[in-house]
Amino acid sequence: MLYGRNAVHEALRARRRPVHRIWATSATLRSESWLKSRTVEVVEADELTRLAGTDAHQGVCAQADGYPYADASALLRLDSPLIVALDEVQDVQNLGAIARTAECAGASGLVIPERRSAEVTPAAGKASAGAVEHLPVARTRNLADWLEEAKAAGCWIYGAAGDSSAVPWTQPEYRGGVVLVMGAEGTGLRPRVAATCDALVALPLHGRISSLNVSAAAAALLYEIVRDRTT
Amino acid sequence: MLYGRNAVHEALRARRRPVHRIWATSATLRSESWLKSRTVEVVEADELTRLAGTDAHQGVCAQADGYPYADASALLRLDSPLIVALDEVQDVQNLGAIARTAECAGASGLVIPERRSAEVTPAAGKASAGAVEHLPVARTRNLADWLEEAKAAGCWIYGAAGDSSAVPWTQPEYRGGVVLVMGAEGTGLRPRVAATCDALVALPLHGRISSLNVSAAAAALLYEIVRDRTT
Repeated sequence: MLYGRNAVHEALRARRRPVHRIWATSATLRSESWLKSRTVEVVEADELTRLAGTDAHQGVCAQADGYPYADASALLRLDSPLIVALDEVQDVQNLGAIARTAECAGASGLVIPERRSAEVTPAAGKASAGAVEHLPVARTRNLADWLEEAKAAGCWIYGAAGDSSAVPWTQPEYRGGVVLVMGAEGTGLRPRVAATCDALVALPLHGRISSLNVSAAAAALLYEIVRDRTT
Repeated sequence: MLYGRNAVHEALRARRRPVHRIWATSATLRSESWLKSRTVEVVEADELTRLAGTDAHQGVCAQADGYPYADASALLRLDSPLIVALDEVQDVQNLGAIARTAECAGASGLVIPERRSAEVTPAAGKASAGAVEHLPVARTRNLADWLEEAKAAGCWIYGAAGDSSAVPWTQPEYRGGVVLVMGAEGTGLRPRVAATCDALVALPLHGRISSLNVSAAAAALLYEIVRDRTT
């Protein structure tokens, strides 16, 4: 059950999964022009809260097929892909926020582990402003194995790290196939994942607090990669 | 009433406002070493929820003086300040996230309008991971007037914009005194604020969705500014 204006709108625009029913409040139906050409069941906000299981529905929800995960190996067959991999990121808000930024930055896809990771839930979809409907998101059984596969396919693997073994974030050239690996909130990259990276990159921390939010770090790194790949 | 582990911890570390009482669950008291040297009243989680007014307290809350806002004009007297200004950003989560990134990037301070803006509430403090306890945050009666004052003080004003009148985000030099102005979610910069900017800068959008989250855009722009100022 998708909910949130952008989440439902982008699911309809992307047409990557069938949307079976749409419910909206009369106020949302009036304000959202993209709903006008659809068959919409008008209900009270309370009913949307019951359907969505949350009051964060923004006046609209939709029944759709499950999220159509992409194939992680297929992403590696693209021409010079830019892929973001998340190493056990737990928070669906962070997953959604990173998916949104990755989609805007023109990334080819997002790869997450099958276990101990936030998944593409309706909450993640809403947090992504519907970006997950366009951006291919793939699951892999073992992230370190997939990173080895990415290296074999010619990608360079960069892991975001806070420690002193990392190079400044502006140092790599980020050309060709690139995988940017972001670690979990608090704990960072797991040792085997970090060991698989060609380089660990760090954003400078000039303040008193010790770490950036993972989605803020992803935004800063992704746009440095975009800068490097386009100038 | 502050709540959240980082929010309370950073308030104690920063010593910018008196903390009068601290409450924590016994589990949090055991796991958080920085609480060991403090006088802590051990309570059940339900009591923290009642005190904090939310269940997002992470096992600790503290009674403290109100947020000690900085003086917006005083920020302009710093040597080559890097200041982030928010033009009616409404969401305390975005305010907190931007404050956290700004503090990490070494910004001199954050300026918000007195009205129609998210304020430094306990929720913003938690969203900032306590960064607002270190980063000076100032309020100004009229943001456009303050931007004129910043220009008179020698700062360059850059407004984040999505439209075609903007230059690429990598084009300015960002040296000397710099103010980065971020617009409200959805509506962007108000016309008079945009008109006050020396340049409007835009991040490229290579995907299908139409905009970045304001805190992601702030992260990408702030670290581009950091890159430019340090290389």
